[in-house]
Amino acid sequence: MPESSALSATERTRHRRLPEQGRTDRHDLHDILAAGVICHLGVIADGRPINARPGRPRAEAQPGEVYPMVLPTVYGMDGDTLYLHGSVASRSLFTAPRTTICVTVTHVDGLVLARSVFEHAVNYRSAMIYGTPRLVTDRDEKLAGLHALAEHIVPGQWDYARRPNAKELAKTTLLALALAEASVKIRTGPPDDGDSPDATLPVWAGVVPLAATWQSPDPDPVLPAGIPVPPHIATLAGRPADRRIP
Amino acid sequence: MPESSALSATERTRHRRLPEQGRTDRHDLHDILAAGVICHLGVIADGRPINARPGRPRAEAQPGEVYPMVLPTVYGMDGDTLYLHGSVASRSLFTAPRTTICVTVTHVDGLVLARSVFEHAVNYRSAMIYGTPRLVTDRDEKLAGLHALAEHIVPGQWDYARRPNAKELAKTTLLALALAEASVKIRTGPPDDGDSPDATLPVWAGVVPLAATWQSPDPDPVLPAGIPVPPHIATLAGRPADRRIP
Repeated sequence: MPESSALSATERTRHRRLPEQGRTDRHDLHDILAAGVICHLGVIADGRPINARPGRPRAEAQPGEVYPMVLPTVYGMDGDTLYLHGSVASRSLFTAPRTTICVTVTHVDGLVLARSVFEHAVNYRSAMIYGTPRLVTDRDEKLAGLHALAEHIVPGQWDYARRPNAKELAKTTLLALALAEASVKIRTGPPDDGDSPDATLPVWAGVVPLAATWQSPDPDPVLPAGIPVPPHIATLAGRPADRRIP
Repeated sequence: MPESSALSATERTRHRRLPEQGRTDRHDLHDILAAGVICHLGVIADGRPINARPGRPRAEAQPGEVYPMVLPTVYGMDGDTLYLHGSVASRSLFTAPRTTICVTVTHVDGLVLARSVFEHAVNYRSAMIYGTPRLVTDRDEKLAGLHALAEHIVPGQWDYARRPNAKELAKTTLLALALAEASVKIRTGPPDDGDSPDATLPVWAGVVPLAATWQSPDPDPVLPAGIPVPPHIATLAGRPADRRIP
């Protein structure tokens, strides 16, 4: 757990809209990342066909035109470094210098049903991290990053499952991103129109919470008999998804 | 529900990596969107300070440098059009012609715990939609789009809550995006190493499913007594999050 400290306040992470939802404490960033399973990785691509095949329709994008890609992927943290499984994105995207990415992790906690359609909202926790990723090539750092990824998926898996061998390490694209420039937003509580003229309307208003819960482990059908569910996996069942990491 | 038809196969939506996870039927796209609460909207921004204030640290980005932003926001569908609440993004991003965006909706269905760390995975359903959004300015289309958003949040809310007035309509930034160019990926089932040499290891392997469920409605503390939870909201409690829309 990092020490409590203020997050960056750069122009692109400043809370312009709905500043009351902004958070500036590093603890909030850490908690949102620890509670998530996947992130959405935003990268800039261009219209150049990759491995284009004869007869295939081309992208609607023109060569040289840039467009954003938003890719779900897994991640893990090690101190102030975020590690990302980068195989989802073309490796070439990360070899160009000064390629900024944006990583967003969002939890939906409930639907905010107001008296008016206009005031409807979602209770959520969201973190956006900006930075220039580093392609991890050092063997020891790659192992440390994959350790962070495995432990983020389920704490205890790194010591339980077979660790990556040299061939698997070479096949894995891992990105490192400093947890330095980040924007955190959280909305909680009831609708905002409880003190408006609409509050006299005969309309129910409140929140419908959403809870994500781990279910009982479902064994691989080909798992040999006699292999029990280990305690670090069994303990997940019934636990809220965002309390996976003790 | 749109008729069954094949999704686009442009260069940027072709399933290059793990093609066995790719889906090409429009029904899958519709189902993933219908099951989601929020999307992640990817836009390209640049380093120009917006409403820069004296004394504020500038973005690390330099003027003219582009970078991606990945913003959580709500959406709704009307036929083959996706409507997005666009207030999260600077309006100026959408006035430039040929600005491509990427909208991604992802559901995490479970953790795939394999014998080896390398084969760990996530069961998920994900849709990525590319296109050039249209800023909705026509009053009737804006109402239709907000109807789609409200009904996506909770079916029945548009007829129950107070609808937007002219002032609220003017304050709402709504984007329309054609559901034309899309990539859909789905992973289901057990780990992939059940037929590998690792299958003889004494390691438990299987899936830990994740289930998101709507909880009992929590009334606004200032809600006057005597206003019941209407049936279209009460029916949500205990229902899986991705079966919100009947």
